[in-house]
Amino acid sequence: MRTIRVKTASASYPVHVGPDIISNLGKHLHKLTGKRTPRLFVLTSPAIWALWGRQFLSTTPKSQRPSVLFLPPGEQHKRLSSVERLATELSLAGADRSSLLIAFGGGIVGDAGGFLAAIYMRGIPYIQVPTTLLAQVDSSVGGKTGVNLTTGKNLIGSFHHPLAVFADIDVLKTLPQRELLAGLYESIKAGIIRDPALFSFLEKNRERVLAGDPAALNRVVSSSVAMKAEVVGMDERESGLRMILNFGHTLGHAIEAVTGYKKLLHGEAIAWGMLTAIHISRSRKLLPEQDALRMADLIRAYGSLPRFFASIDDLLGAAGRDKKNKAGTRRFVLTQGIGNTVVVENVKDSELASALELVLAEAAR
Amino acid sequence: MRTIRVKTASASYPVHVGPDIISNLGKHLHKLTGKRTPRLFVLTSPAIWALWGRQFLSTTPKSQRPSVLFLPPGEQHKRLSSVERLATELSLAGADRSSLLIAFGGGIVGDAGGFLAAIYMRGIPYIQVPTTLLAQVDSSVGGKTGVNLTTGKNLIGSFHHPLAVFADIDVLKTLPQRELLAGLYESIKAGIIRDPALFSFLEKNRERVLAGDPAALNRVVSSSVAMKAEVVGMDERESGLRMILNFGHTLGHAIEAVTGYKKLLHGEAIAWGMLTAIHISRSRKLLPEQDALRMADLIRAYGSLPRFFASIDDLLGAAGRDKKNKAGTRRFVLTQGIGNTVVVENVKDSELASALELVLAEAAR
Repeated sequence: MRTIRVKTASASYPVHVGPDIISNLGKHLHKLTGKRTPRLFVLTSPAIWALWGRQFLSTTPKSQRPSVLFLPPGEQHKRLSSVERLATELSLAGADRSSLLIAFGGGIVGDAGGFLAAIYMRGIPYIQVPTTLLAQVDSSVGGKTGVNLTTGKNLIGSFHHPLAVFADIDVLKTLPQRELLAGLYESIKAGIIRDPALFSFLEKNRERVLAGDPAALNRVVSSSVAMKAEVVGMDERESGLRMILNFGHTLGHAIEAVTGYKKLLHGEAIAWGMLTAIHISRSRKLLPEQDALRMADLIRAYGSLPRFFASIDDLLGAAGRDKKNKAGTRRFVLTQGIGNTVVVENVKDSELASALELVLAEAAR
Repeated sequence: MRTIRVKTASASYPVHVGPDIISNLGKHLHKLTGKRTPRLFVLTSPAIWALWGRQFLSTTPKSQRPSVLFLPPGEQHKRLSSVERLATELSLAGADRSSLLIAFGGGIVGDAGGFLAAIYMRGIPYIQVPTTLLAQVDSSVGGKTGVNLTTGKNLIGSFHHPLAVFADIDVLKTLPQRELLAGLYESIKAGIIRDPALFSFLEKNRERVLAGDPAALNRVVSSSVAMKAEVVGMDERESGLRMILNFGHTLGHAIEAVTGYKKLLHGEAIAWGMLTAIHISRSRKLLPEQDALRMADLIRAYGSLPRFFASIDDLLGAAGRDKKNKAGTRRFVLTQGIGNTVVVENVKDSELASALELVLAEAAR
């Protein structure tokens, strides 16, 4: 088990990565909470609980059997109405500020569960036990929690750091291949924006990684988490550096919104968004053609992205509502080479439209 | 205009109290934001906007005309569904992290508006312009924001401090007498828990205060705010001292919940809750009988409290779900004399029931 520490101005907590973590969760929790033995509440998805619930329960002592709350799968449930239902259930079950919420699932469970913990009684402690690759390498780390509005993804939320994150490589065994792949796009992003060694590893070990080789996944998850922990540690609230994590996300979020959060997984939308950002970076001559090709090749090498249809106008409209925008300007993360990222505020609609034309043609094939 | 500064570990901001504040709001805002001139969004109630909207608009420069959002009156609208609607409206109107939200209304507008600002795009700046006495003396100061669940009041929320609070005594002129009175109960609470001079002032100046005499109200609001600012400055997150502000609130919240948030105004429920806490304090022999009489007399002297009907069981049940409870124990704020408050954790159901019996008899008359 490797432990990476996230240290920000407001919090410091460990991210544990490795095999055999859930089977020892009871011990880990005991270390975290000591003699307090808080009441435990688990938020999970029906599918994850069916696969891992028994093992989860077997590691917690009988005196601390958790109450289990469920969030159905799908972005359409990552909404304030679900959070309200869950908060009401917590309240009826007697959860209070000394209780501990465990978000045990993918990114949706983690984001919505973290937000539930952030706003229930103005904040209760929680831990993240991410069960998808995407959640392990990205959403469980950094304290961003939230839910969607109909007008955009994650437009509602809080910064609320977990007490700890437990990323168990074993659970990835039961992850559908498409979801594994979707998570890998965030690791590819980690490589592109800040970790050339991870980028090369992903280039050279495609088959091992896609086959779910535990050692290879351990390496990918650890490096991705370490990159993110470092960035978040330097800029907790996204006033500067942290924005580079949004590489591919401005358009990725717009694509998700325009396709109704149904057609594409988050990571897949981000992959399309990265391809768009690469186009813009290259047409600005920011990005050497050599690097542009390697980046696009790596994204495409990990599998064929699901197609989608959308109009440029709709995408520009949705991109206009992005959280990263400030007083009318459009923040955009571009790349100058592998590991070399830049944030600009002057990307014109026309530039975006040209890049989108290429990407939409590829997406409609 | 008197300015009281709230200084906590995480924020420092002014509370301005006095006449003629709204008519100069443009100037005040300019001082706050300088050259940034953020886009302004006002959240208000239809009634307040009808009374004060014209004056409000006349003080902001044309280049900064605010977009106006409305929250209908009543606790039933202080819910996540309203916050979701308002957030969607903000997003459609293009509000971003550099925008400024102004919560212009009573406690519900302030609490829900502050919470909206806390969670929209994970937090945007806001200011409070409270228009009821209750909001001026209590809810606008201290950074607590939130909405209700069906299972209890303010069970959802965040700590999110405003950039500033503007409490204009003039707006109290248009406040219905019942609401003025409801706010005064929080000032009486301020006197009971920590300010004997304010307590005496309220005893000696009942007629001036109830008649809405501006100088008297200025004194009451300033002292109440100063007391709260001091307490919040010493204990931002309610880990200790700040709990004394909840005097009368454990039962007050329970009464509101059991009567469906309809029968009583918040301040009125708190008044009944204070009478209950006084009964418990006196029957524990914590509170000299002399002081108990003065406290109960002062509460009753300000008008006859609306009656209500409830069962002891329902009230005990609702009190059990209070946010101040910790791992099964019931936190309770008691009084040992005027200005002398204590927090205990061992109030038994039987004690509560005895006190409630007296109060319910009085409330059913």
